[in-house]
Amino acid sequence: MKPVTLKEIADKLNISVTTVSKALKDYPDVSPKTKALVKELAATLNYTPNSFAVNLRTKESKTIGLVIPEVVHHFFSNVIKGIISEAEKVGYLVIILQSNESYELEKKQIELLMSHRVDGILISLANGTADFKHLNAVINQDKPLVMFDKIAKLVKCSKIIIDDQKAAYMATQHLIDTGCKRIAHFRGPLLPQNSIDRFLGYKKALLDNGMEYDPSLVYLNDCDENSFDDGKMNAAKLYKEHNDVDGIFINTDLVAIGAISEFNRLGVKIPDEISIVGFSNWFMSSVISPTITTIDQPGYTMGQIAFNQLYKEIKDIKNSLTITPEIIQLETALIKRESTK
Amino acid sequence: MKPVTLKEIADKLNISVTTVSKALKDYPDVSPKTKALVKELAATLNYTPNSFAVNLRTKESKTIGLVIPEVVHHFFSNVIKGIISEAEKVGYLVIILQSNESYELEKKQIELLMSHRVDGILISLANGTADFKHLNAVINQDKPLVMFDKIAKLVKCSKIIIDDQKAAYMATQHLIDTGCKRIAHFRGPLLPQNSIDRFLGYKKALLDNGMEYDPSLVYLNDCDENSFDDGKMNAAKLYKEHNDVDGIFINTDLVAIGAISEFNRLGVKIPDEISIVGFSNWFMSSVISPTITTIDQPGYTMGQIAFNQLYKEIKDIKNSLTITPEIIQLETALIKRESTK
Repeated sequence: MKPVTLKEIADKLNISVTTVSKALKDYPDVSPKTKALVKELAATLNYTPNSFAVNLRTKESKTIGLVIPEVVHHFFSNVIKGIISEAEKVGYLVIILQSNESYELEKKQIELLMSHRVDGILISLANGTADFKHLNAVINQDKPLVMFDKIAKLVKCSKIIIDDQKAAYMATQHLIDTGCKRIAHFRGPLLPQNSIDRFLGYKKALLDNGMEYDPSLVYLNDCDENSFDDGKMNAAKLYKEHNDVDGIFINTDLVAIGAISEFNRLGVKIPDEISIVGFSNWFMSSVISPTITTIDQPGYTMGQIAFNQLYKEIKDIKNSLTITPEIIQLETALIKRESTK
Repeated sequence: MKPVTLKEIADKLNISVTTVSKALKDYPDVSPKTKALVKELAATLNYTPNSFAVNLRTKESKTIGLVIPEVVHHFFSNVIKGIISEAEKVGYLVIILQSNESYELEKKQIELLMSHRVDGILISLANGTADFKHLNAVINQDKPLVMFDKIAKLVKCSKIIIDDQKAAYMATQHLIDTGCKRIAHFRGPLLPQNSIDRFLGYKKALLDNGMEYDPSLVYLNDCDENSFDDGKMNAAKLYKEHNDVDGIFINTDLVAIGAISEFNRLGVKIPDEISIVGFSNWFMSSVISPTITTIDQPGYTMGQIAFNQLYKEIKDIKNSLTITPEIIQLETALIKRESTK
């Protein structure tokens, strides 16, 4: 059964296509009797309005694109959930693409979304992205673009972020306050702004407390991802190289869980010998043994706010208003658990 | 800057719109010189083809809809990743909607996707879905529909599944083979087919081994979800009501992790006092202490195969072929770890 068209309904009732269209939209210049006839037949025939035809007229696709580094990820999957729940409230659909932390893929995906005429784009940057032409191209075409979590300071668009530096400072300060004297940092990949900011927060907390900053205590990942295995490997390395370290600030809970698993294997007692603070407050961090002290990063809320900002800008563009980029910073909190004293 | 149209390019070069369109598509009846001029100007002006206009002609949207009960879920997020990775290979975009295990929401979402003229729909049913009119309506309009994981046996469409009954039998048999004499089952919610099938596999294994089936050892969840807290609560209940139980087959790893956390708290030794087998092989089950014996459920592969089946059917419909629904069953495996003897 092919989809029913307005013309078929019009033919069956021997009226014009315009009348059918007006009847379905409840225009006042169509009689109640005709409206009733048209609506009944439309329902019987399972008529659904062709949104492509609608789109060509209104120039709206009622869809937005979302480019995200990784779908299988506790933080990002919460962001996705926040975005699609808000989008649905206003009848918007969300197309999701995964960049796998690759700049090349991200660039192609942005082009694909633009050619599909999405009404706006939400993006959290790939760790590999250091060139922003593909994003500026979106903005230059008056297409709303909102970044969240992993942003580029140089691109002029709205951004939904947390204060990574402040949060990392808070995490490190907690290690200092609970008696740690030599604090390492697992910083993750080199490039992304949030890695940089968390590192700066860690360093600043050390210096503000009159502690030495030792670059050899900062452990980078081998690749552009943050994995359980990165935590295991860096914990093993640290254990060999610096067994005087008594605290670690780790850039995500997943990596922290890897580190804890390795320390458990090595018989290193947490927090007696080493204290650990993670980042993100993944629910697993409240379940693992020991439970992990961490920074709560509000993924679901971030997704909701990111969509609503984009939606506001889509409406602004529609009303021929100029978009004023906004930076919205969400609050984070330290969640104290068993992995620190 | 508004998107550039074919007409603007044509006007600037003082040639027809048809010639511009043909030049961009490399038609042989346009001179190489004109082609070069058109392509250069199109690139300078950042021209992107309007896919809505294209869609109206070809009647293809090159998008599919995906309705999934829950995005923040280790198994489903792997399925999503498998789907979008395959879709991208053939230039398809994926719109994701989350039904929150609600039939009402799922029904609305199917209607929304149909009105957006997606080329096909992938769905894993909400636990609340017991009526299938909304799905039959899709099929009756010759729109390809493929179900995966949580399916309805009564709907005539392709299905990508695992043999839940066989997998559950394997899990329960492993408990019996390792010496368990009284085996409980945390079955999750009542309705979904995979809950039913896992329960049947558990029961069959008991009876085939000459063991008594005792309904009071089957624990249902309070609501339609499977959560960590369900595991904690049911473990606490079981501990009070049946302290002779020495093995549990639990319907998902997340619930198993909740149960283990409660048994750890109560001082019940795993596997010495109670053995546990989970389901899904979430990577956390290899990390938690004790690590969990479980059934490996291939989410990523299921997503890939589901998309490819849908894509095949989209092409069949396009070529006016009749769709023959297929049932594709993926292999599962028992992964032995520390939670069983």
